[in-house]
Amino acid sequence: QCNLAGLWKNDLGSKMQVGNVDNEGNFSGIYHTAVSSAEQPIQPSPLRGSQHLDEDGKCTFGFVVNWKSFSDSTTVFVGQCFVDDKEREVLQTTWLLRDKVDSVGSDWKATK
Amino acid sequence: QCNLAGLWKNDLGSKMQVGNVDNEGNFSGIYHTAVSSAEQPIQPSPLRGSQHLDEDGKCTFGFVVNWKSFSDSTTVFVGQCFVDDKEREVLQTTWLLRDKVDSVGSDWKATK
Amino acid sequence: QCNLAGLWKNDLGSKMQVGNVDNEGNFSGIYHTAVSSAEQPIQPSPLRGSQHLDEDGKCTFGFVVNWKSFSDSTTVFVGQCFVDDKEREVLQTTWLLRDKVDSVGSDWKATK
Amino acid sequence: QCNLAGLWKNDLGSKMQVGNVDNEGNFSGIYHTAVSSAEQPIQPSPLRGSQHLDEDGKCTFGFVVNWKSFSDSTTVFVGQCFVDDKEREVLQTTWLLRDKVDSVGSDWKATK
Repeated sequence: QCNLAGLWKNDLGSKMQVGNVDNEGNFSGIYHTAVSSAEQPIQPSPLRGSQHLDEDGKCTFGFVVNWKSFSDSTTVFVGQCFVDDKEREVLQTTWLLRDKVDSVGSDWKATK
Repeated sequence: QCNLAGLWKNDLGSKMQVGNVDNEGNFSGIYHTAVSSAEQPIQPSPLRGSQHLDEDGKCTFGFVVNWKSFSDSTTVFVGQCFVDDKEREVLQTTWLLRDKVDSVGSDWKATK
Repeated sequence: QCNLAGLWKNDLGSKMQVGNVDNEGNFSGIYHTAVSSAEQPIQPSPLRGSQHLDEDGKCTFGFVVNWKSFSDSTTVFVGQCFVDDKEREVLQTTWLLRDKVDSVGSDWKATK
Repeated sequence: QCNLAGLWKNDLGSKMQVGNVDNEGNFSGIYHTAVSSAEQPIQPSPLRGSQHLDEDGKCTFGFVVNWKSFSDSTTVFVGQCFVDDKEREVLQTTWLLRDKVDSVGSDWKATK
């Protein structure tokens, strides 16, 4: 319960494949986003993260996706596992997307 | 330039120690926060992240801090390296803090 | 099309009643939230805002809700009107909730 | 104390002029932003908002800026008044900027 290992899909059609979660809560995987503002075509991108291992299965977690194969941006996700009324695991997440900007003066507009 | 390895300190007094960044841009380290809403005393906490390796040194990066030794929350940070007018590296970051909540109905208030 | 005047309901069950939008795009109304972290019981609260008046009906807008009758917090909403495939107007919004804190040192945790 | 009426300037060089705050906490004014992503030149833009009227002077507040004279975006700000150690009023604010997008499918990238 609330083991992130496996294949996940979100409302926008993005998919992520997460490998085994180790004893520390660390995991890695591949994120295949369905949406992008980058000029180059979307590529599957590596993700790395960490989750809590609480026994109640409502663990919070976070991970980073490095879009390096097609973009100089980075996205972080943070969320929590829940079990819905059909006994399915659901992830509630929010994210921040950091675009690369030229100088500190443009920092105000770098994060979505 | 823009290698995250080393000791960093932010305006609030929080410190992080980042180890070597590998060829993929992956890194690990320890985050010692100066601020917390948790009931238990603050403990140094593990961080894991990923950065770009752009040659211009203005890399975006992201990392996750798992506060498991004293809290069931998780924080993600995303940001970018810059070099200021005194030739010092500066990190501009933003973050999201996910608190654990009991049910999906409380999801609206879980993220700061 | 994309006139905010009327009664709106969101996924959480919160409702808002918006009065006439004037020639400048200004409007007022009442927000009745379904969710709250305040200790006192929820009360209908005044809202004030402003919207664009673009002819294509996809106007962006923003408004402030002052929860003064039961809380010292303030929430701002920003969003955009769309027409869905059933010809219904839908509002896509995001929000920030500012809680009152004692001092600047607690500012980091004041906004959700 | 913590009356928003007056001229304010932020770290980016943006300025706002706020008129009298009425008995309900409502106010209006003009925001002159120093930064913009719009293609057209920046123009002073109307703002409307609401603040609490707490006696301790640490009021939370929010306001909307409608950039209609040069952009189809809208920004909302939310924050709180503090008095610093030199007895000056300081506003701590955060903001969300909503850009207009063509369809709901682009909603994910509309808000900074």
